[in-house]
Amino acid sequence: MRIGNTHYRSIWMEEDPGIVRVIDQRKLPFEFEVVELRSAEDACTAICEMIVRGAPLIGVTAAYGIYLAGLNSDPQHWCEEVRLAGEKLKSSRPTAVNLAYAVDVMLGEVNCAGSREGMIDRLFHMAVRMAEDEVNRSREIGNQGLTLIRDLYKKRGKPVNILTHCNAGWLACVDYGTATAPIYLAHDQGIPVHVWVDETRPRNQGSRLTAYELSQHGVPHTVIVDNAGGHLMQNGEVDLVLVGSDRTTRTGDVVNKIGTYLKALAARDNEIPFYVALPSTSIDLNMIEGSETEIETRAEAEVAFMEGWNEKSLQPEKIRVLHESSNVANPGFDITPARLVTGLITERGICDATEQGIGSLFGD
Amino acid sequence: MRIGNTHYRSIWMEEDPGIVRVIDQRKLPFEFEVVELRSAEDACTAICEMIVRGAPLIGVTAAYGIYLAGLNSDPQHWCEEVRLAGEKLKSSRPTAVNLAYAVDVMLGEVNCAGSREGMIDRLFHMAVRMAEDEVNRSREIGNQGLTLIRDLYKKRGKPVNILTHCNAGWLACVDYGTATAPIYLAHDQGIPVHVWVDETRPRNQGSRLTAYELSQHGVPHTVIVDNAGGHLMQNGEVDLVLVGSDRTTRTGDVVNKIGTYLKALAARDNEIPFYVALPSTSIDLNMIEGSETEIETRAEAEVAFMEGWNEKSLQPEKIRVLHESSNVANPGFDITPARLVTGLITERGICDATEQGIGSLFGD
Repeated sequence: MRIGNTHYRSIWMEEDPGIVRVIDQRKLPFEFEVVELRSAEDACTAICEMIVRGAPLIGVTAAYGIYLAGLNSDPQHWCEEVRLAGEKLKSSRPTAVNLAYAVDVMLGEVNCAGSREGMIDRLFHMAVRMAEDEVNRSREIGNQGLTLIRDLYKKRGKPVNILTHCNAGWLACVDYGTATAPIYLAHDQGIPVHVWVDETRPRNQGSRLTAYELSQHGVPHTVIVDNAGGHLMQNGEVDLVLVGSDRTTRTGDVVNKIGTYLKALAARDNEIPFYVALPSTSIDLNMIEGSETEIETRAEAEVAFMEGWNEKSLQPEKIRVLHESSNVANPGFDITPARLVTGLITERGICDATEQGIGSLFGD
Repeated sequence: MRIGNTHYRSIWMEEDPGIVRVIDQRKLPFEFEVVELRSAEDACTAICEMIVRGAPLIGVTAAYGIYLAGLNSDPQHWCEEVRLAGEKLKSSRPTAVNLAYAVDVMLGEVNCAGSREGMIDRLFHMAVRMAEDEVNRSREIGNQGLTLIRDLYKKRGKPVNILTHCNAGWLACVDYGTATAPIYLAHDQGIPVHVWVDETRPRNQGSRLTAYELSQHGVPHTVIVDNAGGHLMQNGEVDLVLVGSDRTTRTGDVVNKIGTYLKALAARDNEIPFYVALPSTSIDLNMIEGSETEIETRAEAEVAFMEGWNEKSLQPEKIRVLHESSNVANPGFDITPARLVTGLITERGICDATEQGIGSLFGD
């Protein structure tokens, strides 16, 4: 999508086949900086330190990381090296299912009995294809979700107010996003939309990334603290809740950024449709209940410190927002039970958040 | 309650009858600074700029403000001046009912046909009495709520986990607090408690004030972002939710800090008791539905900027956490419908959040 007048993806290559480029998402919206990944270790660091984040982008970054592992591999030990890189990448973040999926697909291209050159070539094409597939899935999620927004607009005859949590935008994917894809398509088609952007503490992906994305693409939006969504829903100011997912189980339980569950409860209490937009790569058909997911516990410092922009020094600044005498707990995700989900918006269509619904689209 | 080894109240006088002292709550927990109020204007500023906050403390500050108006009044025009000060103080914050109540009680002491000296004397005694009454109500709320915590401890046989939102602590009152009063009493009696402290964006009263209070008094606690409470409840890590209220209607609808409603929804979804601790001065018997309340819309800057402590300069610092191209909405309160409230803990006892329940305690 657009940053200024330039079209960007969140991960790309230019001429040099040894360099993969990503945007340093930790620095947005105050600084725009491109980071070069030249090795699997770089890809691992980018995922661990959240230079890149968002389930689909993590998967694609890992795919490119395995390609880079192959490209830089020792001619004698390339097979072991690539597999080892896969293991490391797999363990770099625990919650998103896309990561393990991408690694497995990439390693499936590695034939240890074959040639190193052939392996590099296959890994390159597979990584590029996974990125393209992600873009295509996002675009198709956009088309599917667009029907919901169009229907709401027809029914209401005034701008459709959509609440979203965290960043399930193009920065979390490769392009378009998941939750944002229908919003971008609606906006581009002239359907008036307005987005309530949850700040999304502690990392503020909503206020830092989603708001930035929407702003750069010209979509009307308002940032709110995570506490405010319930009040807005009570007051009829939300027509639709649209979020992404890091992992959705076969029965429709949705693992997503911490706080999603609270918004789902408020949506149900106010009879507002609550939809989850996700590519099939975020559906974990091997998992039945959301409670089986390992919920990542993240660093206390994410809560105790806040990053932002110092308007005096014109520099990024980190401040302590909590006295050091207090403990902190920082679970990264929560589980929205399927019963609270109106539907899943996937690249194959919209379905119920049930085993039957998911099976009807992904039974194969 | 204790700050270090000293017992403090949130508002007090020393020898000079012309000076009322309060703690500058905007600077906690990083700096401890006492502010002197010498006039009704000072009291107004203290309320408007949130040097003091919390419904009961706002009421008592306004009471002292009217006393100061009387003390400093022109001998010719004291009656008009005191009344005008009352009007100004009443409009300094819109949501808390305690403010209007305190002003009305104080103005009831003003007899324009009497003497200025008599008026000053009566205002002084009434302000002191309102502060004492607030302390007594808090202590009694503590005693009432203590029974709930003791019962939970007996039933569980392990520390009672209590989640609270915002600061309904002694800093919001004069001493003890409302939601925290039962917690302090339980802790002081040796009942093991652990408090989950919601950060409470955008002003962070939870992480800045409640955590500070609990820390200074030695109560085990853990700060979490506002998004995390639902997840903790799903995982059985919360036994009781205890919050305060800025205004509770005659039918039990609870107006409180933005985000309270979301926690009430999660408590109900997980069958966790959700209690509201409040003095009778926060009950508005004239209001039927919570939706009649004017919900204060606060400044965008509260969301766009974050205050904290710069560990490099060892100075307080304000940073921008949101790009200036995005709009912000900042509603300050929400309404938790009575149906989600397990009970109200008042100085007269615990009652259902219904007209009948409230009437049974406050029918007179």
